[in-house]
Amino acid sequence: MERIIVQKFGGSSVANGERILNVAKRIASYYKQGNRIVVVVSAMGDTTDDLIKLAMEVNPNPSKREMDMLLSTGEQISIALLAMALHKLNIEAVSLTGLQVGIRTDSAFTKARILHINTKNILKHLKENKVVIVAGFQGVDKDMNITTLGRGGSDTTAVAIAAALKADLCEIYTDVVGVFTADPRIVKDARKLDIITYDEMLEMASLGAKVLHSRSVEIAKKFNVKLEVKSSFNNLPGTIIVEEYKGMEELVITGVTAKTDEAKITIRGVPDVPGVAAKIFKALANENINVNMIVQSASRKGINDISFTINETDIEDAKKALKSLSSELKFEDYDIDKNIGIVSVVGIGMRSHPGVAQKMFETLGKNKINIEMISTSEIKISCVIRRDKVNEAVQKLHKAFNLEKIGRKISKAVVK
Amino acid sequence: MERIIVQKFGGSSVANGERILNVAKRIASYYKQGNRIVVVVSAMGDTTDDLIKLAMEVNPNPSKREMDMLLSTGEQISIALLAMALHKLNIEAVSLTGLQVGIRTDSAFTKARILHINTKNILKHLKENKVVIVAGFQGVDKDMNITTLGRGGSDTTAVAIAAALKADLCEIYTDVVGVFTADPRIVKDARKLDIITYDEMLEMASLGAKVLHSRSVEIAKKFNVKLEVKSSFNNLPGTIIVEEYKGMEELVITGVTAKTDEAKITIRGVPDVPGVAAKIFKALANENINVNMIVQSASRKGINDISFTINETDIEDAKKALKSLSSELKFEDYDIDKNIGIVSVVGIGMRSHPGVAQKMFETLGKNKINIEMISTSEIKISCVIRRDKVNEAVQKLHKAFNLEKIGRKISKAVVK
Repeated sequence: MERIIVQKFGGSSVANGERILNVAKRIASYYKQGNRIVVVVSAMGDTTDDLIKLAMEVNPNPSKREMDMLLSTGEQISIALLAMALHKLNIEAVSLTGLQVGIRTDSAFTKARILHINTKNILKHLKENKVVIVAGFQGVDKDMNITTLGRGGSDTTAVAIAAALKADLCEIYTDVVGVFTADPRIVKDARKLDIITYDEMLEMASLGAKVLHSRSVEIAKKFNVKLEVKSSFNNLPGTIIVEEYKGMEELVITGVTAKTDEAKITIRGVPDVPGVAAKIFKALANENINVNMIVQSASRKGINDISFTINETDIEDAKKALKSLSSELKFEDYDIDKNIGIVSVVGIGMRSHPGVAQKMFETLGKNKINIEMISTSEIKISCVIRRDKVNEAVQKLHKAFNLEKIGRKISKAVVK
Repeated sequence: MERIIVQKFGGSSVANGERILNVAKRIASYYKQGNRIVVVVSAMGDTTDDLIKLAMEVNPNPSKREMDMLLSTGEQISIALLAMALHKLNIEAVSLTGLQVGIRTDSAFTKARILHINTKNILKHLKENKVVIVAGFQGVDKDMNITTLGRGGSDTTAVAIAAALKADLCEIYTDVVGVFTADPRIVKDARKLDIITYDEMLEMASLGAKVLHSRSVEIAKKFNVKLEVKSSFNNLPGTIIVEEYKGMEELVITGVTAKTDEAKITIRGVPDVPGVAAKIFKALANENINVNMIVQSASRKGINDISFTINETDIEDAKKALKSLSSELKFEDYDIDKNIGIVSVVGIGMRSHPGVAQKMFETLGKNKINIEMISTSEIKISCVIRRDKVNEAVQKLHKAFNLEKIGRKISKAVVK
């Protein structure tokens, strides 16, 4: 069989009839080159928000099962329209819902995980020379209830289908031309990366780069799916994401990212006995709160201060968790600081180039930017700083690591 | 098990969040009386029209399979929202798509016919004391393609489910209070009928009464489903539709209906040999044209004129059929008359009360309304007249048959 390519188009790429026809033309050109094409689409533009608004009118606290029943219609509308657009170009195409494909998930409504993809139906249609259009973001549990995959779900659908089909390439079309060394809105010299590793992309995605959801990158890494992120509004080459590439350790770092949607919580006067941290983070996990950075400082005799960062949207749930905790764990008090930001440098190269941390801290220090927390992994270093210093920090770090000299310069007009 | 009631709500009954909550309250009151409830809903208000408009932007001649994929989302949105509304009233409820219920149809996309309904899933949820909310208008073929049932499809879904469940009652909620002796906008003395037979309802539905689609009445008759048509905007009793009821032959006629969307085609100079009519109506059937009334008059030696009526929307297709016909069948010419109307009187009672036809013709004649074609069945008489005389004819016939004295007087304010 010919090359199989999975192409995923996000909501802004199919926001209206004209854009859907443009997407169809792009698919047609790949199809006519002899490729077998599977397309995954998201809901059109604001459809999902409109549906959520409708639900809120009826019940401000809707059941998650019914929410998935409701929201999954958004992608079903897109796939039908895209099939019609391809038919207009005289290309055979068929649309399939998650259920019709056989995308089996667990029953965690609104954030289900894919368990298995049945490729039989897709392969049957591909063999009949059809473009197969699959609804992103959705699946079905063992009892045939419709589920959705949560944020970034359509990326996950695309990569999982590419893995199941052993596709030659999975292209993620979006509204930016690729992955940049930093957010081009903050750093005017930011460069588009031609290639990057899964591990770097994973760190960058979880540290603020919004171009791909980290879950889809995890699956791509696990099944070695060759990914490309590119723009649906032009024909520029995007960023290719792979396990490894020649010369990948020559670069010290590949990107600077920033998050400004986190808050720092500091619990003061925690008794310094074993199991305390476990209790705290178990209480937070019970409320489904993702904790990002954690720092424990033994500041006084026998008692500790513990700081951690969470997403701002989880603050109310965190207060609940801390309240429930206070009955079984004595601590003095806690405070919540929303004026923080996290700036990170990411790069495979730092494994073999010592001195990255030192250069990062020096750069921030020289610019009078105070570091409040530090967290490191093998390929990233993150610092918590004041939120109003974040943009400056990103710019100075981008310069300090000479990132304006790597990757590809993209004209401002086509960044988005 | 308790009584099972199937309740169907049309698009205007669920047109916005507030109305959906009102529908939920009505369902809740029946549920709390100890009934098992299955609800069938249509798409909200203008959803279907909006989706058709979207399709037309992309492809003015969309594939029927993809059209069904698209349109079926409308009902899926309604069922999810109605489940959420019931949850808000603390009533357990679950929504099911046509596929999830197991409504198996043939593969005639956009006008599929139901082959079988699997009641297992519905019964399981009913036993768990849940209100079961089913998407109307849709089903699934043997290959799991989504199909829709065409005009009046949600009524058909409701009646078919009631038949499959052997439900005690199937209530069709709509925006009118029931079936009237004539259209209340035309006849100010029109009365709401408390009860009517399937056969009468079938004739009235196909002769212009828009309250129920004739296909759903056919199924109700076939499986003896007790139907009630009533308003979703008040609590008045509606019209009950049954096989037979005591005293049903006492009334001579039960209603006067009118159609003003038909056209009359007259083919002149058709050779008077066997098989000619078959050829004509086969040519029309090949274009999927429904022919309503047919009159053949042997006016001249050896040649005939044949007149028939069709829906106005089929005129272009009819011209095509007649063109193809002219090569194999010699006829002089044909003309198309759009200024006709059909007025009918319907009633089981006319089987045992002679003189109905005579009274109808006399009434029209006395009022100088010329009759151009006549068609009769055991329980109806229809006449083609000039379109501008239709309202007057309906009023005079209603009066002549004393229909203002039967049924129930409904205050003008709640007719709709």
